[in-house]
Amino acid sequence: MDDQEPAAPDTAQLAQTLERVHDADVADALNAIEPHAAARVLAALPFDLAVRAVNQPELDHRAHLFEHLPIEKAVALMRAMSADQRADVFRELPQRIGARLLTAFDAGTRESLQSLLVYPRTTAGGIMTTEHVEAPATWTVERTLGQIRAGGYPRRPVYAVYVLDPLDRRLIHVVTLRELVLADPSRTLMEVGDSHPPITVNAWTDREEAARLIAKYDLLAVPVVDDRGHLLGIVTVDDVIDAMIKEQTEDVHKLGGVEELDEPYTKVSFGTMIRKRGGWLCALFLSEMLTATAMQHFEGALSRAIVLTLFIPLIMSSGGNSGSQATSLIIRALALRDLRLKDWFRVALRELPTGIALGTILGAIGIVRIVAWQLLGFFDYGAHWFLIALAVGLALVGVVTFGSLAGSMLPFVLRRLGFDPASASAPFVATLVDVTGLVIYFSVAYAVLRGTLL
Amino acid sequence: MDDQEPAAPDTAQLAQTLERVHDADVADALNAIEPHAAARVLAALPFDLAVRAVNQPELDHRAHLFEHLPIEKAVALMRAMSADQRADVFRELPQRIGARLLTAFDAGTRESLQSLLVYPRTTAGGIMTTEHVEAPATWTVERTLGQIRAGGYPRRPVYAVYVLDPLDRRLIHVVTLRELVLADPSRTLMEVGDSHPPITVNAWTDREEAARLIAKYDLLAVPVVDDRGHLLGIVTVDDVIDAMIKEQTEDVHKLGGVEELDEPYTKVSFGTMIRKRGGWLCALFLSEMLTATAMQHFEGALSRAIVLTLFIPLIMSSGGNSGSQATSLIIRALALRDLRLKDWFRVALRELPTGIALGTILGAIGIVRIVAWQLLGFFDYGAHWFLIALAVGLALVGVVTFGSLAGSMLPFVLRRLGFDPASASAPFVATLVDVTGLVIYFSVAYAVLRGTLL
Repeated sequence: MDDQEPAAPDTAQLAQTLERVHDADVADALNAIEPHAAARVLAALPFDLAVRAVNQPELDHRAHLFEHLPIEKAVALMRAMSADQRADVFRELPQRIGARLLTAFDAGTRESLQSLLVYPRTTAGGIMTTEHVEAPATWTVERTLGQIRAGGYPRRPVYAVYVLDPLDRRLIHVVTLRELVLADPSRTLMEVGDSHPPITVNAWTDREEAARLIAKYDLLAVPVVDDRGHLLGIVTVDDVIDAMIKEQTEDVHKLGGVEELDEPYTKVSFGTMIRKRGGWLCALFLSEMLTATAMQHFEGALSRAIVLTLFIPLIMSSGGNSGSQATSLIIRALALRDLRLKDWFRVALRELPTGIALGTILGAIGIVRIVAWQLLGFFDYGAHWFLIALAVGLALVGVVTFGSLAGSMLPFVLRRLGFDPASASAPFVATLVDVTGLVIYFSVAYAVLRGTLL
Repeated sequence: MDDQEPAAPDTAQLAQTLERVHDADVADALNAIEPHAAARVLAALPFDLAVRAVNQPELDHRAHLFEHLPIEKAVALMRAMSADQRADVFRELPQRIGARLLTAFDAGTRESLQSLLVYPRTTAGGIMTTEHVEAPATWTVERTLGQIRAGGYPRRPVYAVYVLDPLDRRLIHVVTLRELVLADPSRTLMEVGDSHPPITVNAWTDREEAARLIAKYDLLAVPVVDDRGHLLGIVTVDDVIDAMIKEQTEDVHKLGGVEELDEPYTKVSFGTMIRKRGGWLCALFLSEMLTATAMQHFEGALSRAIVLTLFIPLIMSSGGNSGSQATSLIIRALALRDLRLKDWFRVALRELPTGIALGTILGAIGIVRIVAWQLLGFFDYGAHWFLIALAVGLALVGVVTFGSLAGSMLPFVLRRLGFDPASASAPFVATLVDVTGLVIYFSVAYAVLRGTLL
């Protein structure tokens, strides 16, 4: 932790302005200045406002800011933060500083923090907060409302009251705040609200499942329980939205063949950018080298029929394109649960005729193009021009069909192997299809042109 | 509308079972059976449950189901539906049936519906609902709570009370339900809650902006206003989540080069699938034909140096891969507002050195590969093998740099032209880069090999 200099006058003024704006805008303003300066502004802000700023997941370099705060300030802010955001920052702190803060916490804060740090960031437990309102089933509406008013629950919106079995403290019922407000105050909690058993999620379940439940059942929060049904915390809709935006970014990046960036494009350093892009690019390049090997294998045919080379890019790209179409369809269908792992064979049976139909369309266009150029005198493909057109057309059917099949199966294979199906990037699929595409093209050309050109 | 047969016994039983489950699960169950049968089950369901089922946007073929209901049933359900869901279904009804329903509505329902149908589905107005709670600024907390209890507001969760200026009825303040519950009942609404001016969105603004505001400020709903600041309705967090999921699907499909599908993968007919994929595939194929034209242009060089053809797939795919990386980064940065249209030059200045660095890495690997194969005796690239390696290496630098630049600029160009930047699919970028990649490769080869091989 750096020693803190006294705040400069403009810093004090900024702090004053920030008091009138929304938390998220405070975070924006801090994002716009250098992390060192931001740490100083943070230290100069009224405590309450500083807490609200560091509670914003949109605040960049949060862990970094904490490193640059005086230790007492850092401890005080951490203690006042909401439990899930605190755990979030903590995950990114250097071990040394984390350990120092941990010893400075009171026992309650420490235990709450440690119980959350058990769960990885990608699980429901990893994005839950422990600041929810719970009450035993025996309480009345009036008593519960009184408790909410007395408690104040200042850090988090109250979405619902989670009703526990008074004996074994399992979660047995949920009453939304609205149901509570509308209810007769003398009723008990069990008499209020929907009679469905509560929709819950296990702490170790993927956070995407929590998002799916919230989206499906239009919830504001989904309770997180352990294996025995005890309430551990809740995942709120705003955290789910943040998680959805992050995953959407990851998905688009993965589809483009870029490793996850943890920061916005504009803030990633040159070195990190090269690393995040270079890794995949090199891996794809090394795989794509197989195309050179395949071409070497067909060098004899190439030298006898140079004209065949003219269509290599066209044929290869068509396979890649049909493959990335199929991949993007299957990735989303798997993410949305329209398809499950066991549906792979159904998909294959569907992609086979789709690929043949699409390949036939492209093949026909290809044949028309070659025939037209020949007959119109734009280019001379030699004496066997019609056989060449036929070879290109048939190869397109084969390559596009193979592309659709390979592209649709790749996400299934990745999920089966325990990877994210979204890792099946368009470049990955294209590379996979390229080598096979070449082999298909030359095999078809051999069959069609044997005895004439080859 | 079909004539309705009496419900079969198993239909009645299904209706009974459905009463005990959650609305979203009722929709799921209806989705699992044929639309005709689903319409019959819907008609047999207790009215209240049927309303909740048709209020679920997850219910497939909603408009289709309404077409198959008896007209009185359809009118009654429509009237009881929440305003935004009603408008949603209405947009998809055949004109003839829509007109028939409209005349059967009471004036209030008709006007509410028509006021919502003004806005396209992609605007905030197009996904807003008009069932919100509003109150004049002069009311006390107690009076407002009393009104909420009396009104019942049965169709929609109450997220907040929207406080209007008593004179000109402009939206001037927002009090969340929680703030209302915690407040002193004798206070007026203006004395309760945050003092920030309310965060609002214009009805004609893109729905993505509403989603962004809800995500940024952790809101449960964002009020929609007209140009004079009058409250028109609210966009709720659950609608935003549904819109986000839809847009995510569209984005992934577009990135893969597939036109928007309006239905899940498993439910799209064969013909539709061919149309949605064939269109882009043919467009890309026609553009990619330019590669054949470019290759024809270089046929002389090709026949003199067959060995150059071996690396065509490798070089072209590297350009496409670096291009789709850059595109996916920029698409997300634009969507997240990390970048604006005016930043295009900054991005170009950044992608140039990034492309050169990445190209140099791949070029070096390429040279090592050719030299190694030659020296180890795996393949004989001829007398000028080192010059060939050099040409391939230099071409890779050029192609990868061009790919990064073209891939990063394409989303900007698309946005500038008024298209969705996400239309810059990986296949689109690859096609764009392929032709130029070939020209770069042969130009570099000419320069390096002039006087020797060429």
